[in-house]
Amino acid sequence: MNAFNRVTEADLDYFRALLPGRVFSGEEISTDYDHDEMTEYGHFMPEAVLQALSTEDVSRVLQYCNEHLIPVTPRGAGTGLCGGCVAIHGGVVLSTEKMKKVLEVDTRNMTATVEPGVLLMEFPKALEGTGLFYPPDPGEKTATMGGNAMTNAGGMRAVRYGVTRDYVLGMEVVLADGTVVQLGGKTVKTSSGYSLIDLMIGSEGTLGFLTKLTVKLVPEPKVNLSLLMPFDDLDACIGAVPQVLSCGCDPTAVEFMEREVISCAETYLGKQFPDMSANAYLLVRLDGPSAGALQPAVDTLTDLALSIGAKDVLLADTDERKESIWNARGAFLEAIKGSTSTMDECDVVVPRDVIPAFVNRMVEIGRRAGVRIRSFGHAGDGNLHIYVCRDDLPEAEWKQKVSQVMNELYGAAREMRGEVSGEHGIGHAKKAFLRQSVGDTQMRLMAGIKAAFDPKGILNPGKIVG
Amino acid sequence: MNAFNRVTEADLDYFRALLPGRVFSGEEISTDYDHDEMTEYGHFMPEAVLQALSTEDVSRVLQYCNEHLIPVTPRGAGTGLCGGCVAIHGGVVLSTEKMKKVLEVDTRNMTATVEPGVLLMEFPKALEGTGLFYPPDPGEKTATMGGNAMTNAGGMRAVRYGVTRDYVLGMEVVLADGTVVQLGGKTVKTSSGYSLIDLMIGSEGTLGFLTKLTVKLVPEPKVNLSLLMPFDDLDACIGAVPQVLSCGCDPTAVEFMEREVISCAETYLGKQFPDMSANAYLLVRLDGPSAGALQPAVDTLTDLALSIGAKDVLLADTDERKESIWNARGAFLEAIKGSTSTMDECDVVVPRDVIPAFVNRMVEIGRRAGVRIRSFGHAGDGNLHIYVCRDDLPEAEWKQKVSQVMNELYGAAREMRGEVSGEHGIGHAKKAFLRQSVGDTQMRLMAGIKAAFDPKGILNPGKIVG
Repeated sequence: MNAFNRVTEADLDYFRALLPGRVFSGEEISTDYDHDEMTEYGHFMPEAVLQALSTEDVSRVLQYCNEHLIPVTPRGAGTGLCGGCVAIHGGVVLSTEKMKKVLEVDTRNMTATVEPGVLLMEFPKALEGTGLFYPPDPGEKTATMGGNAMTNAGGMRAVRYGVTRDYVLGMEVVLADGTVVQLGGKTVKTSSGYSLIDLMIGSEGTLGFLTKLTVKLVPEPKVNLSLLMPFDDLDACIGAVPQVLSCGCDPTAVEFMEREVISCAETYLGKQFPDMSANAYLLVRLDGPSAGALQPAVDTLTDLALSIGAKDVLLADTDERKESIWNARGAFLEAIKGSTSTMDECDVVVPRDVIPAFVNRMVEIGRRAGVRIRSFGHAGDGNLHIYVCRDDLPEAEWKQKVSQVMNELYGAAREMRGEVSGEHGIGHAKKAFLRQSVGDTQMRLMAGIKAAFDPKGILNPGKIVG
Repeated sequence: MNAFNRVTEADLDYFRALLPGRVFSGEEISTDYDHDEMTEYGHFMPEAVLQALSTEDVSRVLQYCNEHLIPVTPRGAGTGLCGGCVAIHGGVVLSTEKMKKVLEVDTRNMTATVEPGVLLMEFPKALEGTGLFYPPDPGEKTATMGGNAMTNAGGMRAVRYGVTRDYVLGMEVVLADGTVVQLGGKTVKTSSGYSLIDLMIGSEGTLGFLTKLTVKLVPEPKVNLSLLMPFDDLDACIGAVPQVLSCGCDPTAVEFMEREVISCAETYLGKQFPDMSANAYLLVRLDGPSAGALQPAVDTLTDLALSIGAKDVLLADTDERKESIWNARGAFLEAIKGSTSTMDECDVVVPRDVIPAFVNRMVEIGRRAGVRIRSFGHAGDGNLHIYVCRDDLPEAEWKQKVSQVMNELYGAAREMRGEVSGEHGIGHAKKAFLRQSVGDTQMRLMAGIKAAFDPKGILNPGKIVG
């Protein structure tokens, strides 16, 4: 760990001249900047918040901070779940919140180029009328596209379309010393040396500061529909996943949900879910060119589900029905959050065939520790979102229990050859678990990469490595 | 560049004890090992050829060579096109040709785990009866799957299914010092630190030696058919690509071919192509669950093609017709090779909308230099395979002309924001063009990565970087 310098009045003067009206220090800094969406991981107030407007702004700030050994924490909308955008070593937060222009939509190459601060929920407006869409679909729509790229965010549609990594074609990145590099572009394939762009994707701002992003678009499917399959128990529900994936129906999304979590969402939204007859549900979405084209897949999946224990198959092909199901699914995180005083989160991904075994272990771990655990997730990807709820546990007991439960959950994931994070990243909160998972050799390789990109270690220090 | 040691008798004794009957030196080495498929890039005889059988073999050889500063050049089937598997600094070639077991086909997780020497043409046998298939489809079927992963090979089906990178889930890799690491596994998504596996893919054996590979499989489409679209000229032919890609028909392959190259293939194969009425052809392949399900796409593409200048649309839906077209396409490289004394190759990839402009530039460059150029390629990916033919040019004139033509072709690709290689890699032959394309900063980052993985530089020295 380098000995960083504190931000001085002289530094602030330099920043103010460079970014007039976009420098905040001391009392001017909103407390929003001292955390992300997981307050459980602590509050860390930066010494200054700087809002960049351009690549040049970013380059000059980084060059200055690199020379003066001031840590720089890149930040988008602050919607992360592992403290990745929080200034745990002080210094400056460099925010992309004002870099939110869609720079180009290129329909011939089916690409779009955006500034990093464009919100996921705003981007579709730029594509209206083009017949194209951007498939990555993380639940958190107020996240930025830059943040999504830097955490390799996944989302609901990953089963069919893949994750953010699969859509990033080009990046403009500012290195720690202020040098601007162009990685990739609008080409759709390459074998041209080490894939620096793949290294940058998911690096959580520790290797470079993203200033422009070129993503791949695909033709928008004309219709979609969902099938809701109630099961008596979770084992049978998740156990159906391999067959759902291999039956040739090419599902867009395969999610599992339990009655208790749906209840939570009903309360949170004040709206009823269309079916509460079962303990566990598998939700399968299909995309296609027409309802007729999807009918064979609907028939195949319906027969399959009923033959392996589904009590029924509910077709959601009207907007109202689809919304009542997907809005509930979209509200799970907030609904669980609203149901408890505080919580910790685990985002492991395991091979798909061991999800039932993992979920059983999770239930057992929670039961033994005497804490309430809620989970849901991307069954089609083997990616679970697990929330350990504090409820009314006293501080000391909570700390002890949550630490034990997390150790056991990550331990079980390792045993089952899973990985620490399916889509939320490592930040500072999951570093110890990453090291346990990949081992010292891989951590040493990552540290070597970090040193090659950022020799002084000023970029988002304390995240992922170091 | 390190000062490497020569392989001594003592070294050979050590290798012979370790790999009995699998060590070759001096006259015992077949001349096959002194080149890959592009003899134009020179002949380099290794001091020894070692055939590994296991991860432990690889680990012990690397540990020894790392301690004794002996260069190690990993080699699969030697079908590369840029000298990547050739021992340009001497030392040992460590071959995977005897590591060709399919270790597991896991139908529940839809993965397969193979040793690196499994040939692409042999792998489908292991999947028979599972209903699953492995989409990457490079033209060279005698290549190894390990070689495909280490060059990020592409192939015909990349438009719909992506390239090798998109199918690699797990790797067992031996580092330069003999340490064995497991990257990824059977999980289908991850955001768990820097993507070392994406760095390893396409690194051409310069960062580690691949000993096991876990790939993703997908349900096999039940039917496929192809549409052959003759056009009066290449401009109109390739100009159709953006509309073919964006019309929502999800093509598997979109290839372009010219009459002269088809003629060449007819001669080479001794078989007639089904249509020779036009100067240029677009070949579009569709995969789907049934002929009926593909009919709307066939109709859409036929109407589209005829509306933008195709003279006709030939449907290939019988095995015989499909073979007559695709066998010709598959023979292009060998046919061009057979038509000339020697040749050089360029595998640039450009944004798809500038392919017509690039092809026009290419024709002009060849015309001005007075050399015969033949090309074909993956129009749907913007990836061209361009062959500069020596024919009967005298040595000195050929050297001068080919150098000029290559400089101009790569220069044109840079101008059009393309990349050096779409799928063949860099090896030693394309290093200078890679540096021109990405610049010194990115080369410095790559060198830093190389140093983190292989501090003594023994792994495939002189390839990509250094």
